Amino acid sequence: MFNQTTEYALRAMACLAYQPEAMVPTTELARLTKVPPNYLAKVLQELAGADLIVGRRGVGGGYRLARSPASIRLLDVINAISPVERIFTCPLGLETHGPNLCPLHRRIDAAAEALIDIYGGVSLQDVVSDSNVAQRPLCDTGTTLRVSARSRR
Amino acid sequence: MFNQTTEYALRAMACLAYQPEAMVPTTELARLTKVPPNYLAKVLQELAGADLIVGRRGVGGGYRLARSPASIRLLDVINAISPVERIFTCPLGLETHGPNLCPLHRRIDAAAEALIDIYGGVSLQDVVSDSNVAQRPLCDTGTTLRVSARSRR
Repeated sequence: MFNQTTEYALRAMACLAYQPEAMVPTTELARLTKVPPNYLAKVLQELAGADLIVGRRGVGGGYRLARSPASIRLLDVINAISPVERIFTCPLGLETHGPNLCPLHRRIDAAAEALIDIYGGVSLQDVVSDSNVAQRPLCDTGTTLRVSARSRR
Repeated sequence: MFNQTTEYALRAMACLAYQPEAMVPTTELARLTKVPPNYLAKVLQELAGADLIVGRRGVGGGYRLARSPASIRLLDVINAISPVERIFTCPLGLETHGPNLCPLHRRIDAAAEALIDIYGGVSLQDVVSDSNVAQRPLCDTGTTLRVSARSRR
């Protein structure tokens, strides 16, 4: 449905949402999300570029959410990597179509709208709050987050 | 929402659905769909590989639908290029999750289900039948399909 980078971004954001005050090292996020560290580093840079997370270099560094989990929707994460776009005008640039989409593009637009509704209606806080011990996103039973909460800068 | 190759595949299939008996040359399909011919040629090969279209080389050659437009859903076209996949087991392979998805992957699976419902409920015939003269998929007013219907082999 969406590319692997987006799936990885959602994993990373869900992990960070459990400990929104903590700076989580990239290596730790890679372990928890089961994403290759180099790949994840690029994903995190994209998320930081979209102002969804903030990073700090050096000892005690890593990434944390840029704002509260309640204010970040899954759609925001997806849009930072591979946006879900409504279709407002003919993708072929046909002048006689313009904003009056053909039946094919009306269907594609309707599907985009459905995705936006679904992902726009769920925040990271919803995901975290909805968890139980056995099915915490990305965490195996017994897996603990080996980072300590730090105050926000 | 999906990659450009899938969008191009849907365009090509919609074009072919208007004239299901005709062999439409790749160059003509490229003109109608506004897709670079070399790119479209690869897309058509993928669609042929998925048994959605059949091709014929040489003079009078091209591609036509492998079966009736009513029996080909938009979902079939999408799945031939970039499948929409439900999530039946934890993508991270966490043993304690298994088929009991975490809240994150439950949401992603719900979105996949919504897409499957939307695209699975629309056939190429629906798209063609739903058209009016001004908003035929991929066809500008005055654009005519410069191919003649041929009997099926």
